[in-house]
Amino acid sequence: MVRTTFSEPDLRARRWLRERMEAGGLHASVDGVGNVFGRSPNDGPALILGSHADTQPNGGWLDGAMGVICALEVARAALEDPTTADLAIDAVAWSDEEGTYTSCLGASAFVAPLTEEQLAATNAEGETVAEALDRTRLAGSERVSFEPARQIGYLEAHIEQGPYLEASGLQLGVVTSIVGIRSLSVTFAGEQNHAGTTPMADRKDAAVAMFEFGSRLQDRMRAVASDVSVWTTGVVQVQPGAQSIVPGQAHVVVQFRDPDEEVLRRMDGAVRELAAEIGAAGLVAVAVEEGERIAPTVMDDELQRHIAAAADGRMPGRWISMPSAAGHDPMVLSHHMPCAMLFVPSIGGISHDFAEDSYEADIVAGCQVLADATVSILRQAMRP
Amino acid sequence: MVRTTFSEPDLRARRWLRERMEAGGLHASVDGVGNVFGRSPNDGPALILGSHADTQPNGGWLDGAMGVICALEVARAALEDPTTADLAIDAVAWSDEEGTYTSCLGASAFVAPLTEEQLAATNAEGETVAEALDRTRLAGSERVSFEPARQIGYLEAHIEQGPYLEASGLQLGVVTSIVGIRSLSVTFAGEQNHAGTTPMADRKDAAVAMFEFGSRLQDRMRAVASDVSVWTTGVVQVQPGAQSIVPGQAHVVVQFRDPDEEVLRRMDGAVRELAAEIGAAGLVAVAVEEGERIAPTVMDDELQRHIAAAADGRMPGRWISMPSAAGHDPMVLSHHMPCAMLFVPSIGGISHDFAEDSYEADIVAGCQVLADATVSILRQAMRP
Repeated sequence: MVRTTFSEPDLRARRWLRERMEAGGLHASVDGVGNVFGRSPNDGPALILGSHADTQPNGGWLDGAMGVICALEVARAALEDPTTADLAIDAVAWSDEEGTYTSCLGASAFVAPLTEEQLAATNAEGETVAEALDRTRLAGSERVSFEPARQIGYLEAHIEQGPYLEASGLQLGVVTSIVGIRSLSVTFAGEQNHAGTTPMADRKDAAVAMFEFGSRLQDRMRAVASDVSVWTTGVVQVQPGAQSIVPGQAHVVVQFRDPDEEVLRRMDGAVRELAAEIGAAGLVAVAVEEGERIAPTVMDDELQRHIAAAADGRMPGRWISMPSAAGHDPMVLSHHMPCAMLFVPSIGGISHDFAEDSYEADIVAGCQVLADATVSILRQAMRP
Repeated sequence: MVRTTFSEPDLRARRWLRERMEAGGLHASVDGVGNVFGRSPNDGPALILGSHADTQPNGGWLDGAMGVICALEVARAALEDPTTADLAIDAVAWSDEEGTYTSCLGASAFVAPLTEEQLAATNAEGETVAEALDRTRLAGSERVSFEPARQIGYLEAHIEQGPYLEASGLQLGVVTSIVGIRSLSVTFAGEQNHAGTTPMADRKDAAVAMFEFGSRLQDRMRAVASDVSVWTTGVVQVQPGAQSIVPGQAHVVVQFRDPDEEVLRRMDGAVRELAAEIGAAGLVAVAVEEGERIAPTVMDDELQRHIAAAADGRMPGRWISMPSAAGHDPMVLSHHMPCAMLFVPSIGGISHDFAEDSYEADIVAGCQVLADATVSILRQAMRP
């Protein structure tokens, strides 16, 4: 699936989705930032259901899209069924969750005016958000905004994108929080030299210092991590990068994630402490610079309870509460309204890849839990 | 000093040098591959003295040029002095020792026809040797070739390019051999994955495997190395190189040098053994591919003895026999004639850098030893 934000396939998919929402009885539009919003004809209290419609450059068919279609189906089916036809269920497909331009663009625009920084964010070809909105003529359309007096919360169904549920024989995850992400950029400055004429004892080899750091980092992180912590050294660079030159500079980015701010703090400390130890050895200067820093997002307890109760009814003993290791639109939305999410198992944990898939029975079961939870949340909210 | 091969400054320097050789009494030409060859008017036995005239892209003022000027001065002074005016001393400035196109181009052309591969070698701008010889009109000039019936050997004075002589308070090195160089390219193939949703236990992280390899490599190499061995991991790459992706591929080139083929063999074995151990752990596949492989070049014993005797006379107790850790034209020439070299101390061991320098007294002393050795070698060869 290649449907990056504001590409032709993305725009075509959004127009198609608007039609399906209309056909399902919603008042739908593609708004000024590309969000497809289907507003229920019923008065509030309303619940927003949705996910994102854009994909990674080489994405899977379910990441985002599954939750959008579940939202449409729950909203449509509720209107069709006389016992739920009075419920106000709004469905949404957010724009650019994946960050082709800037992560969670559509959800951000829903809750607040876009910042200059967001409008100036560019895609890989250098086009800004502002230019893209002009090119696609979306700029001329009205933006749909959050209605605090009407909308009481947001629910999202999504694939897990990891292997945990399938490997554990479970069918559904109730998301407790979205992990916080921090990254620290560690730079080793040694002395660039001739790889033939510089004796080993005289070297200040930045790559060797980095190898030492990267190798010792694993135990250090394990010692302070939680069961669900992850850490990754995905960016590794050595300068000048020639066979016959002792590297003068090396650079590694350590990214780490955990749902608990305290664990993130400990991991941050472990990276800095190890970097300081390598620096204290005196051969190379080690500098640590802070990179991204996203706080953990806690899902709403009350909404989680409704999803858990629905899961208990549909798949007793086969669901679990779990954090989300990937980022999602509730990172932005939860500052403005209660949010909750549920996960459907990913086959082999594969995501951001054409091979991404889930079993149909799991998707159906997840959608059913989403429907049950939606009804129970709205019925409770409508109680006098 | 920026005088890369076949650049305008390089060609200008060669024309200047030809004039200086002529003024010194030699029959000189810039030949068909750019070598500046000054042939003594005397009959053989002749000794060739020289070095290279080209520099690194950001080179020092002595690397190559010092040996060329010493050769010119010894040849010129010998003709001027009635006691040595009968000696046949040829002086040469080789072309492209530094490999702007291909390493030791001029020396290669002196002893054998250039190969197709050498003619097709390109500089950083993509110009081939053949194109460069046309552009510079050198192609139209005759190539000067080795005359085995006349020339009995080759001597070169060069800066050390390392810190050893200066740090040891010595004034001259008699080169015993030029180190052999081997490189092994080690590739770690793991599994590319989402850095958030892939639990630590499920990862096959190529970068972590490479850190482990690079960190353990140091002790392994030390265990089999000689006192003069060096090893370098100057090329380090991790793919795809994004913060949020567990690296699927990592790559490091291990280059190692030693004057002894047996030590090189042991170091080769240590790299392969460690790579196999990391691979045997089962998380990543490790492949080792052979890169450059240059055998050690042993300098001629007899010529070394003449240089040593001259050094004993000029700087008793202040010279040493030592290997060369950098490559030089005798790597090519020694297959065709006896070769020897002497080293002048480099201040701070700095080379391939504008800051490269040597003390004038050391240069003068080195040139004097070159002259003394030249006279004694030729006098011995002329004995009936």
